[in-house]
This record gives sequence, structure tokens and C-alpha cells, in this order.
Amino acid sequence: MRTKDDEKQAALFEATVKLVNEIGFVSSSVSKIAKAAKVSPATLYVYHRNKEDLLVSTYVDIKLSLSRAILAGFDDSLPIRDILKNAWLGMFAYISKHPDYFRYAEQFANSPYTSLVDKAALEKYFNPVLNVLKRGVEQKIIKDVDPHLLGAFLFQPILHLANPTKCNGFTLDEDNIEAAFTMAWDAIKL
Amino acid sequence: MRTKDDEKQAALFEATVKLVNEIGFVSSSVSKIAKAAKVSPATLYVYHRNKEDLLVSTYVDIKLSLSRAILAGFDDSLPIRDILKNAWLGMFAYISKHPDYFRYAEQFANSPYTSLVDKAALEKYFNPVLNVLKRGVEQKIIKDVDPHLLGAFLFQPILHLANPTKCNGFTLDEDNIEAAFTMAWDAIKL
Repeated sequence: MRTKDDEKQAALFEATVKLVNEIGFVSSSVSKIAKAAKVSPATLYVYHRNKEDLLVSTYVDIKLSLSRAILAGFDDSLPIRDILKNAWLGMFAYISKHPDYFRYAEQFANSPYTSLVDKAALEKYFNPVLNVLKRGVEQKIIKDVDPHLLGAFLFQPILHLANPTKCNGFTLDEDNIEAAFTMAWDAIKL
Repeated sequence: MRTKDDEKQAALFEATVKLVNEIGFVSSSVSKIAKAAKVSPATLYVYHRNKEDLLVSTYVDIKLSLSRAILAGFDDSLPIRDILKNAWLGMFAYISKHPDYFRYAEQFANSPYTSLVDKAALEKYFNPVLNVLKRGVEQKIIKDVDPHLLGAFLFQPILHLANPTKCNGFTLDEDNIEAAFTMAWDAIKL
């Protein structure tokens, strides 16, 4: 069950995403975010010591829910292609459900605030996927290239394709989702 | 030779990119941009009827220079893989040289201003690449899938990998550039 604290935190995150997407990082002041989240600025400061902390926490929160979505159907006993396909579909479902989170995350990653994130700590949440890729390389199923390359081909095209403001006139129907995974797999397989 | 007009236009574009990357779209006022470009606001209004027009023109200008970079070494007599590789290397060289333009373009594509761009008109500049892909599909060299899918796998991973704020700890050295093109080709080839 969600506590009252969790609810306030969730409201702050939602308000941050909404406001930043609408008016940008600079104009999104602590008082405006607190107002949009229907909490007092004093309450906001109980959870976050300043605006930077709130912006970074919102980004980290999005990344953690993404990792949970990716790992939801994780079954290490399946063939490598199937494990990666499940992770890939989990990611796709999450993006489709939360385009606003991704807009925020992308703007954040292009902002100076990105330097405040402990990226190594965050990457650990995605380790199960990384370990499957490593196993695939050892078993000569997957190309022996830098893991950044594998990740980029697995996840960047679908991130772009799932963004309706960037890809209008294109629908990710069942055929296109299937084709996109086949292409991602062809890119990374040996 | 560049005319005085061209120089003022170029200064306005550079100032827009710089200011928006630093302080965001909302805070980047016409007067601040004019000041950064060292022109008077009145001069700015000779070229652009308002802030929206300046922001959109800057985006379109970036996309047009990108298309020129992609098509610089275009030689239709080469094998399809080589034509695409040249286009791909042209794009990569352009991104590496102008990371600030890409940061601007990405923020713009995630902003409400993106709806003001005539995307169909802009896509025409990339038609030579699209036509090569079509020819590849007809010759059963390239997968017969939606062109958005082909474009996404050719260009999105390298866009991501070339962005140091997103991919730190990764260098696009010669081996990685070669591996990345091989992966893009494997994704799209039949």
C-alpha cells in the first residue's frame, strides 16, 4: 500500500515532469512545482533540498521505473534472443504508456543537470540485461563489440520510433514492432 | 562570398543555438538573442517576424546543413552499401563537429514549436537517401519494411553514440565507427 509520503513524492514527480515539459527547466521554479503538486513549498523541501535535487530525483525515478518495466518478464532460463525480446517489449510498453516521462528524460539528458546524476549507480539497475549480452558474446551469438554499441542498437531506434512528435505518419502496429525487434536483433547478432 | 545579410543571419542562428542550449526556449527572449548575436532587436525583426519564426528557422537551417553534409559525397553509381556508408559517415562527421546544433535540434523536436515545422518539405531534402533505400528494397538487398524503420536503425544509434553527455565512457574511434556501420547495415539488409 502506498503511504502518504509516497503519494506526495509521486505528486511532486508528476508535477515536475508536467511543468518542465510545458515551460522548460529554467522557468520551472520550486514554488510553481509545489503548487502544481498541491503541496506547500515547505513540504517539498522536506523531500528535496533544492530544485536541482528534485529535477535529478525525478530523472532517476523515471530510469528506475524503466528498469523495472524492462526486467518485469525477465526469465534467465529462456534463449538469449527471447530474454532480450521480452526486455525490449517491456521497454517499448513503458515508453508507449509514458511519452511524457521520456520527453522529460530526454530534455534532462541534454541539460547541464545531467552531470549531477551518478550514472554508474543507475547503470547497475540494468545489469541483468548487460549480463545477458555478455553471455551472448561468450557463446558467440552476439557481436563482440563495446556494450554501448549493443545497447544503442537495441534501444535507440525504438525510443525514436515510439515518439509521435518525431515520427509522425508512422504507427508502431504489431507488424512494425515485430520488424523493429528483428532489425535490432540482426544488428547485434553475430 | 558571404553577404552582410548572410553574416547577420548566421550570427542570429549561432546565438539562438547557444542561448537556448544554456537557458532553454522560454527564457531565450528576442532581446537576449539579438544582444548575443550583436544585432539590434529591430534588425532581428527584419529577418524574423517573431521568436517562433527565429526558433523554427534555426531548426530548419540545422536540418538543411545536415542534409548537405549527408549528401556531400553522394555518388549514385556506387553499390548501395557504399552509398549509404558515405551518407552515414557524412552524418557522423557533421554531428561530431556540431554537438551544440544537435542538442538544440533535439530539444526543439521535443518542444511544442516542432508542430510549426513543415516536416514534409524538410524531408524532401533527404530524398536521395530515401530513393537509394527504395532501390535497395526493389533489388532485394534491403528489408521491405516502413522507411521510418530503415531510417531509425541507420541514424538513431549513431546520433546517440556521438553524444558525449549521453554516452560517456565511450569513444567513437575508428573501430567503433566501423562496427556501428556494420551493425546498422546488418539491421537493414535483407
